[in-house]
Formats: sequence, C-alpha cells, structure tokens
Amino acid sequence: MLVVMKADATEADVARVCDWIREKGYTPQPMPGAQRTAVGLVGNDGRVDGSTLEDLPGVAEVIHVSNPYKQVSREWRPENTLVTIAPGVVFGGNDVPIIAGPCSVESEAQILASARAVKAAGAVALRGGAYKPRSSPYSFQGLGKKGLELLALAKRETGLAIVTEAMDDEGAHLVAEYADCLQIGARNMQNYSLLKTAGKIGKPVLLKRGMAATIQDLLLSAEYLLAEGNTQVILCERGLRSFDTTSRNLFDLTAIPVVQSLSHLPIVADPSHGTGRRDKVLPMARAAVAAGADGILIEVHPQPEKAMSDGAQSQTPDQFTETVQQLRRVAQAIGRRITGPL
Amino acid sequence: MLVVMKADATEADVARVCDWIREKGYTPQPMPGAQRTAVGLVGNDGRVDGSTLEDLPGVAEVIHVSNPYKQVSREWRPENTLVTIAPGVVFGGNDVPIIAGPCSVESEAQILASARAVKAAGAVALRGGAYKPRSSPYSFQGLGKKGLELLALAKRETGLAIVTEAMDDEGAHLVAEYADCLQIGARNMQNYSLLKTAGKIGKPVLLKRGMAATIQDLLLSAEYLLAEGNTQVILCERGLRSFDTTSRNLFDLTAIPVVQSLSHLPIVADPSHGTGRRDKVLPMARAAVAAGADGILIEVHPQPEKAMSDGAQSQTPDQFTETVQQLRRVAQAIGRRITGPL
Amino acid sequence: MLVVMKADATEADVARVCDWIREKGYTPQPMPGAQRTAVGLVGNDGRVDGSTLEDLPGVAEVIHVSNPYKQVSREWRPENTLVTIAPGVVFGGNDVPIIAGPCSVESEAQILASARAVKAAGAVALRGGAYKPRSSPYSFQGLGKKGLELLALAKRETGLAIVTEAMDDEGAHLVAEYADCLQIGARNMQNYSLLKTAGKIGKPVLLKRGMAATIQDLLLSAEYLLAEGNTQVILCERGLRSFDTTSRNLFDLTAIPVVQSLSHLPIVADPSHGTGRRDKVLPMARAAVAAGADGILIEVHPQPEKAMSDGAQSQTPDQFTETVQQLRRVAQAIGRRITGPL
Amino acid sequence: MLVVMKADATEADVARVCDWIREKGYTPQPMPGAQRTAVGLVGNDGRVDGSTLEDLPGVAEVIHVSNPYKQVSREWRPENTLVTIAPGVVFGGNDVPIIAGPCSVESEAQILASARAVKAAGAVALRGGAYKPRSSPYSFQGLGKKGLELLALAKRETGLAIVTEAMDDEGAHLVAEYADCLQIGARNMQNYSLLKTAGKIGKPVLLKRGMAATIQDLLLSAEYLLAEGNTQVILCERGLRSFDTTSRNLFDLTAIPVVQSLSHLPIVADPSHGTGRRDKVLPMARAAVAAGADGILIEVHPQPEKAMSDGAQSQTPDQFTETVQQLRRVAQAIGRRITGPL
Repeated sequence: MLVVMKADATEADVARVCDWIREKGYTPQPMPGAQRTAVGLVGNDGRVDGSTLEDLPGVAEVIHVSNPYKQVSREWRPENTLVTIAPGVVFGGNDVPIIAGPCSVESEAQILASARAVKAAGAVALRGGAYKPRSSPYSFQGLGKKGLELLALAKRETGLAIVTEAMDDEGAHLVAEYADCLQIGARNMQNYSLLKTAGKIGKPVLLKRGMAATIQDLLLSAEYLLAEGNTQVILCERGLRSFDTTSRNLFDLTAIPVVQSLSHLPIVADPSHGTGRRDKVLPMARAAVAAGADGILIEVHPQPEKAMSDGAQSQTPDQFTETVQQLRRVAQAIGRRITGPL
Repeated sequence: MLVVMKADATEADVARVCDWIREKGYTPQPMPGAQRTAVGLVGNDGRVDGSTLEDLPGVAEVIHVSNPYKQVSREWRPENTLVTIAPGVVFGGNDVPIIAGPCSVESEAQILASARAVKAAGAVALRGGAYKPRSSPYSFQGLGKKGLELLALAKRETGLAIVTEAMDDEGAHLVAEYADCLQIGARNMQNYSLLKTAGKIGKPVLLKRGMAATIQDLLLSAEYLLAEGNTQVILCERGLRSFDTTSRNLFDLTAIPVVQSLSHLPIVADPSHGTGRRDKVLPMARAAVAAGADGILIEVHPQPEKAMSDGAQSQTPDQFTETVQQLRRVAQAIGRRITGPL
Repeated sequence: MLVVMKADATEADVARVCDWIREKGYTPQPMPGAQRTAVGLVGNDGRVDGSTLEDLPGVAEVIHVSNPYKQVSREWRPENTLVTIAPGVVFGGNDVPIIAGPCSVESEAQILASARAVKAAGAVALRGGAYKPRSSPYSFQGLGKKGLELLALAKRETGLAIVTEAMDDEGAHLVAEYADCLQIGARNMQNYSLLKTAGKIGKPVLLKRGMAATIQDLLLSAEYLLAEGNTQVILCERGLRSFDTTSRNLFDLTAIPVVQSLSHLPIVADPSHGTGRRDKVLPMARAAVAAGADGILIEVHPQPEKAMSDGAQSQTPDQFTETVQQLRRVAQAIGRRITGPL
Repeated sequence: MLVVMKADATEADVARVCDWIREKGYTPQPMPGAQRTAVGLVGNDGRVDGSTLEDLPGVAEVIHVSNPYKQVSREWRPENTLVTIAPGVVFGGNDVPIIAGPCSVESEAQILASARAVKAAGAVALRGGAYKPRSSPYSFQGLGKKGLELLALAKRETGLAIVTEAMDDEGAHLVAEYADCLQIGARNMQNYSLLKTAGKIGKPVLLKRGMAATIQDLLLSAEYLLAEGNTQVILCERGLRSFDTTSRNLFDLTAIPVVQSLSHLPIVADPSHGTGRRDKVLPMARAAVAAGADGILIEVHPQPEKAMSDGAQSQTPDQFTETVQQLRRVAQAIGRRITGPL
C-alpha cells in the first residue's frame, strides 16, 4: 500500500501517517519526491483497509498494491486448474468444450430436440434454464423443478453433461441434484449468499461476469467460491453494458487473455449474450476461440422464432453445425482442439 | 411495437411479419416510407416478446413503444405514493427525511453514539448494516443477528426509525423483525428471489439502483415488489460505475427528476456512496435536495478513521450537523422542508 | 512513480528496474513487501514515461503518483483564478453568472429576441453558435461569419457578453474578433491544434468536457491553454455518454467539487446538454448551483418548437425567467449570488 | 419516424402532431394502441429533426426509424468498397493487409529499422506518427515535417505504403504529400473541419473510432468524407473507454461484423491500442482476424523499452514475426489470406 501525501502536507502529517501504519503492525517507509512525499506500507498482506487513511490530514490518495484476491490468482497456483464437469468434458486444458442449448427449457419435445441437435453438431454439454432471471416480473420465469427433470431426461437420452442456472440458496441445492455444473448468472455475480452456498455444495460452478463487473470484481466473486473450498470454477465472459446499443452487450474478449494471466481458472465465452444477435454469433465465436477461450457457450433452439426467450440470439441447429465446423478449423490454427470426436 | 423492415425487404417479407402479428392476436398496420416500410403492432399490451420477430427475413429492427413496467408507472397512478416507515417519517410528500448512520454496526457503543449524534443533528432514521455485501470474502461481513439487536437497542434509546439491508431470503425475514424499512442493495437489485420475498413480507423497502442499471431496470425491479402487492417502495440513486475513477461512482442526480416523471414512487439520494469521498458529501447532498430528492441517506461515523468499512466516505458528527443545516436552507429555497423539528 | 514487481520477480529483476531508474537520473527506493516488492522512483517531476518500464521482466504494474498536469493544479496556484469575460461578468468568485441563448444563431430576429429575453430574465452573457459541430453532414451547420455579425449586433443592442464556439484554427481567429469568450466544444476537447491556437490568441476560453473525458483529461486539455500563456480558462461540465439513454447524457455534477479541489480554474455547468430535456433543465440547474457551480449555461429559444437544432432541450423565455428566480434563491441558500441586478 | 404519445394524450394532442407532420410536407399515420397512440411519419427521407416534436403537448417520445447516414450504408451500395492505398495493398476484399510500425517516428535509424523489420515479417504498409496527439502538452509531440520526410525515405527503401496521422487542416495537406493514406485519430473523429478537409483532398483515409463513439457516430463521421466525394475510407476499431482499467481500452471486436452489415466500407482492427499491453496483442490480433477484420494495425518498435511513446503496447520485431505467422493460419482457417507473399 502506498500513501501519497498532498504537495503541501507538513512533516507532522507524514509522521501521523507513519504512526497509523505502525499501529496496525506494519513498517512505514517514507519516500520524499519532487512534488510530494509518499509513504509505503511494507509487508502488508492485503487485508488492511486503507480507506480510513484517506481521512488523515495531508493525505491525497491511497494506492493499493497487493491484489485483494488470493486463491484465484496465478501466483497462488501457477499451473492451470482443470475443471471436469463430466467424463471427458474438461475446461482449462488444451481442448475446448462447447456447451449449447436453448435459453429456457420449454417442453420435453423442445429440450430433447435441442439436445439431439447440439450433440449431433459437436457439443459435449447441454445448457438450458429451468429458473430464469428476467428483468420483468411478467416475463416467462422458467419451468422450475419440472425443467430440471427434463434436463435430466435429455442427459439420459444423449449423454450430454448439464449446465443450468441457480438463482437462490434453495434453488442451488435442487439444481445440484440434477446438473453437472451450476451456473451463476451475471445478475447474481455479487449475490454473496448464493456464492457461499454454491461454494459449500462443491459441484463445479460456471460463474458469469456481471454486466458492469471489472475483472477484479469477477475474480473476487470467484474467490468466494474458493474460500469455501470449491476450486472447480469456470469463469465466463458474456458481454458488458455499453453506451452503444447497436449490440445488446459489449463483448469483452480481451478479458480472456487477461484472466488467463491473472488466474489459474479456465474462462469460457458466450457469444450469444455477448452480441445478442444471431448473425453475429458465428464470427464472434470464432474470435473467442482465436483469443484463447477455454470453452464456448452458444444458444441453440430448434425453432428460434418460437422461443419463449432470447429467440433473436439463438442459432438454428444448421447454423450451429456450421459454427462448430468453423470453430474446429480456428482451434486447429492456434494449436488447440474442440472437445469431442471429429 | 414497431417492426422496421430493411430497405430491400420484399412484399412477402412484410406479409410474413403481418401474419406473425395476427397469429399473436393483434392487428398489423403497415406504414410504407421513403427508405423502408415499418409495421405497427396495434393494441399491444406490452407482453409480446418481439425479439423473435427480429429473425424473420427482411426485418431490420424491432422497437418497443410500450413501457415494460406497469404498476410503478405514473400512468398507473398519477399521484405520488407516500411511504411511511415510522410515525412522521414519510417519503414522497413535501418533507424530506434524512436517514443517517454508519456503514456497519460495529459495537453497542459505536451504534449508540452514532444514533445519538445523527438524531441530535436532525436525522429521523438510522441506517447501519448488520449484513454487509463485500467484494472480498476476507473483508468484514457484518455482525449479523447481533447487529440487528443493536439497531433495535438504538431505536429504543433514540426513537429513530431503522433502515438496514437484507441480502437473502432468510435474512429478509429476520431483518423484517427488527427494521422499519428493508434495504435491498445495489448488488442485489436484480436478485429476483430476494425481491419476491421482500414483496411478500410487505414491510417498506428501500431499493438501491444497481451500479449499471438503467432507470428502466430500476423501475422493473421495483415492479417485482409491487407485483407481490407491496407498494411501500422507496427508490435510491447511489452512483453508477464510470470510466472515471476520480470519484468512487458517478452520481446520477438527473435520475431524480426522471424517476419522478415516470413513476409515482419516491426517490432518495445517497451522496456518500454517490461520491465515495467525505469532502464531496456536503455539496452533493445539497445538489440532491435541489434536484428534488425525496430523502437523503448519509453515512456518519463517530470516528470515521476507525470505521471497519467505508471510513473514507463517512462524515463526522460535526460535519453532518453542518450538512443538515445547509440542507434545511436549500430545501426551503425550493419550497420544501427537511423532516423534523427545527 | 511506483513500480510494483510480480510476486515471483527475482532480485535481478528488481536490480534491473533500479538501474533503469538511475539511468533516467532518479533514485530508486526498493520496498520489499509480504507478497511482492515495489520500487519507488524518488524525485520524479512527472515527465518520466513509465510505460516502457512495464516491459521489463518481473514488473507487474507501474503506478503514477504525480499528476501529469501542473499549471492548472490547485498546488500550482492555491487561490481561485478569476476569469473576467466582460466588465462585471466574472467567473470563479462568489458571484455566479448565467450565460443563456439559443443553440444556433438562426436569424437577426431570432438572436435579438433571444438576447432581449435572456437579458430581461437575468442572464449576463449570450450564447449561440455560428459554427455548429453536427454528427451528420446533412444537419444545419450554422450561419458562419454572418452568425458572428449577428451576435455582435445583439451585443450592441443588449450589452450582453458573447460566448460562441470555434471549431478550427481559422475559425478561432475569426471568432476572437467578435466574441468575449471562445467556446471549445466537447467533441474538440482533445483537438490539440485548436487548443494551442486558442491558447495563443489569449481571449478567455470556455472549455467543455468531452463526453468520455475523465476529469484528468479535461485538466490536461486546459493545461494546453495555460502552457501557451492563457490563464483565462473556464471549464464546463455538460454531461457524459452513458449506457442509459433515458437522458441524452449523464450529467456529472460531482465534477464540480472535484475540479474545485484539484484546480484553481472556475467550472460552470450546462444542464441543457447535461440532461437533453427541457423539463429537466430547471431541477438540474438548481442542483448545479447547489453543488457549487461557478456559472450556469442554459439554452433558451424564443420558439423552441421551431429551433433548427436542440429544440427539445431549449427553455422558453418564460421557463428561463422562472429558472433564474429559483437559482437566485438556491444561490442565496448557500451564501452565493447570481451575478446581476436583482 | 414514430411519435409515441403519452397515455393521457388527448385527441387534440394527436391532431396537433398530425398537423406538425403535414406542415413539414409528410403524411401522418396515427396508430391507436392499448396503452397509447403512436403517429407514424410516412415517407420521411431522414432529414426531419424530430426533437422539437418532443415539446408538443402529449408527446412521450420520438423514435427515429431511418438511419441518419446514407452514402456509407450497405443499402446505398450493396457490394464492398475496395480501398487501394498502394499497388497490391487493398482493403475490403478477401485479402487482409497488415499495417505495422512504431507509434512515433523518432529518428532515421529507428524508422528504417522498423520498416525493414515489419516488411521482413510480412507487413505491406508502414505506420508511424509524425504528428502525435498527446493528452499532455509536455509529452513528445512528434517530429512534424521531418517525420514525414523520414517516412518517405522508409518508403523508398522498402516499398511499404505509408499510413500516418494528420491533426489539422494544414497538416492534412502536408501529410497528403507524403502518405499513401491519411489517418484521422480517435480524438479527432468528430473534428468536422478536419473531416471535410480530408474528404476534399481525396487520398484514402483511415478513420479511427472515437473512444466513446457509437458505431452510428463512426459511420456519420465517415459520411462527412463521402459527402465531399471521397469514397476511399477505411474504418478502424481501436478500443473504447471503459470502467475497467485492467486493459487500456475495451476492444470492441463485435464492431467488425456489425459495421460490415451496416456499411460497404472496410473495417480494420488495432489490437495495440485496443488492449494497451504488448502481451495481449497476439491473441487479440488473432481474434480480430477470426472476427473478420479487413486489415490489422500493429505497433512494432525495434526497441520498445526505449520508445518515446506507447512502448508498453509495442511488439518487438520477433514478436511481430510470430504474430504474422499465426495470423496467416487463422486467416486460412476462415478462408481468407494475409496480403503479401508467403
């Protein structure tokens, strides 16, 4: 931690800061400069809350040097964490699994058709919401437990691993009975009660980045899961809120190499939410693989024009088949491989 | 709803859109233009999900004309809703109540000192967190139930109404036993399980705007509360995430008159979170009252430099006393009154 | 400047950083920490470009401690700069001048009617564009030199000081012949050629904040003017680009006290552009004065519904008269005064 | 254009809007709805400024249906525009040219070393600034005319096409004498005087997206060039301002397929500015090609640690060589080709 003093700070001001640091059990190290003095806090393990220091007379700014997260950092664990959600479906290695399926589970016919189509095209996991966080209370909220049962049925029929969202503590326990991987959605990225519950349950978690979350916020939310002993965490970039409404969201693909430098956790990309428009999913899925994504999430619906939610961003089965073929070529071009048989 | 066709859309494309609209039970109204045709959906009650229309051939864009929210709108209820959280503490009328207190309840001595100080200065409600949503799992998370008991004690001692945050369903029921008004924080603004629970409990709710929430998002989250039958809802502007980190947040005071045009619900402002810096709280609290805020939330700590959280943005009791005096003058200048005895 | 080393940086890495600093003529000061070492650059006068340091092995981050601006800073000049654009029209003191008028100069009748109306209501300066920066090449671009002549006429008729925009070097010289204060618009805030020209001309400049400019960016652009010897600079907050399109812009009133802490230059606010909607101008003008603005800019048009640009955010003369009366009361409540006779 | 009426608008309000539309020479088409009436303006050619309509009683909102730009749109010209800046260096076709070089021209030795290195690696055009827009007046501002002469020398030595920035009208004419393509930087994207000048000069222009510009803003700025008769325009995505400062900018790769749908102009990507960190340039350049970019701009410096600007984001010649090789493989995977001999 570095305490930057104002240009007109007195020696007494500097001494007061040094005393505050000593009181907390650390060693102050003053650094006089041409314009102003700074005081370093040597040996800080990252837990001192420096904001109160900003109130002392003569203090201009407090700069935090240590990262506030620990177990998620690459420094804590240098090698990649591999997250295995089902046999052969591994995130964080050289292979890139594809998770696909509809936004919502709507009916037995719809989810089975979806599962068969995405499996045939090359997906190794099925996504589909039984519980849907919707901006409006009047929008379709998902089939609930019935939806989970249909996902289980689709798994028995196709062998696909299941990824589905939990929205609260009670739901998380129920979802964990049916799913191979719990999804925590963007709107709940900082729902700390839910994070603690999911951490305790211990099943793999796919944690989506909030729509105005910094990468540090995302890593701190993942830290909640690791702090409960759950290291099987997959991060997901799905687009940020932006001033330009041409696209639904602003897809931040640079987050992929940035997270991979800072953390040992795998990061996947969701070009369906990232762009919000079906005709942009293919180029941006290719871009995500080329950027180094450890997995791809794509919304696919057997009849997008009849979908109960997110129809405009769902691919048809034919479009998805073409997408997987192109992703295979891009993955190969950078020395990786889309998970699954060719 | 208006469906804008592409410039090169064929007559068959337009006919297909008209059929889709008829299928949903509405009347299509084509409007040919110089560059392109648009098709109006007449009689839409706001529940048709037009996103799948965007997939039809020849469709360029779907524009939503109806607001997706209903009960929160000024059109639903033209006169202001008055929210009374305790006798004489009313939001939405001509008087402007001040809610003040520390970020966290830390100890009996601290909360009692805070309560007495803010009461003496002119506050009519006490804020203070027993459950704290913190970005890092290693930061102080609040005293929990013990904190709620201390708030109840402070209420008995001072008569101040209590406003405190609930973070999950279980916590909401517990908070409702002690508090006069449940706070739902910015990070949980789209935690729909919590919103439904708080709607059912029926106690007044102070709902904070999320850090990247549009005003429409905020109103839709409030709609979740009203849809459960709870009309006692106070909205709160507390600053948005911004590219400029000079301030902690970007305090969007224009939200005050905008919400007041669109909705009958009262809206208060929190300049402590809105600015993140103690020395900016006074001018921005004045600005909030001048903009027409229906209440003000201010963080006050007896010893900010020893606060366990948010010390840098907490006022001292002396600063708060000065603030209330200035707010009284500004309120009077615009024909309003700070709640409480002079 | 502080160079934060990676956790796994070697002693050789630290030594290399120290050598680099010595090469530039400064003294390195290593600070070992629990997680990582940091190296301070003592005595930096703010001109060392540390970005190349980020390339050295073992370096995690370079943190700049000194402000990159100098002459605009409060540390360079502790007392407020007073900017006088005409006799009695002074920005930066206790009085708050109001600048008002139409978006564009459209005709002799229109600008004279505007000038008389705003003068009668209490404005002391007239705004109005002769050169208009418009997003579309097909929108009205202003009357040019003819517009400047009409502004001069309005000045002779009413005695109001003239504030009008210059868009390029050639235009700046022409504008300077007619205007009391050159305006540099938001889109040109980082047009450094124009800033240098305006700095050399030496007339007072009103510099508007760009729509995605940080406060530091704004101060650095002002520094271009001061670096040419022109200290008569008024800064202006006029709203930022935001993800919420409910308002045209996000009016950042906190910028007012922030700029006043960091700089000695006066800062005014433009609630017309800041909100983009006529019915929001009154409350947000009040808020700006309450926040401490050193002046207010308001768009007024004799017949807003016939305006050639920005009609939706222009007040009528009657609305403006009411606005000035309310601003007088708010200014008085905080111990200031709207410039001009009561 | 669609005029949405308030729910409580009277018939007289609707009639007034219809009259306004007729006055402008268009045909109003009222569309009564369940909640509210809307009035369509049929036949609008896109030039009516509807903002004043928002002032009429009973009007809630005005929605623009026609695009404000014309000649840049895909509807104006369905096939891609090919921009040829030098023999064999064509943007907008199947081949993807790479433009590379240092941020600034610093010396003869530096620019010649850069040119030879990037040519050897596979670039077909040389970038390098002679005029540098810098946030601070105290930063290195470029060598000016001397820099242009050195670029011309580098062209003679290597045969590379030259792309370099112009910052004002005078500079644009000078740059046009030396360069094959004028660059207009992000900060000047809405400097309309400069756009008009560059449009008149008629040389190919590379127009960078402003850091808070929507895609519509970018296309409108390009429209300024086309409106002057210059169709040889290359657009460039280089990252947007964001709330997350982990990267220097937020690289919006979705802009590539979005622009390609809306416009016939080619769009290139600049991962050096887009990410701001040298180690992120390689993966994000790959992502840009995979997303369909029509060209790539990369900063390369023979000794980045000694660069006078942007050292932290410049690749070394070795890194650039590796990058080009990887880009060749990614381009091939999507059926395109990096311009130049293998």
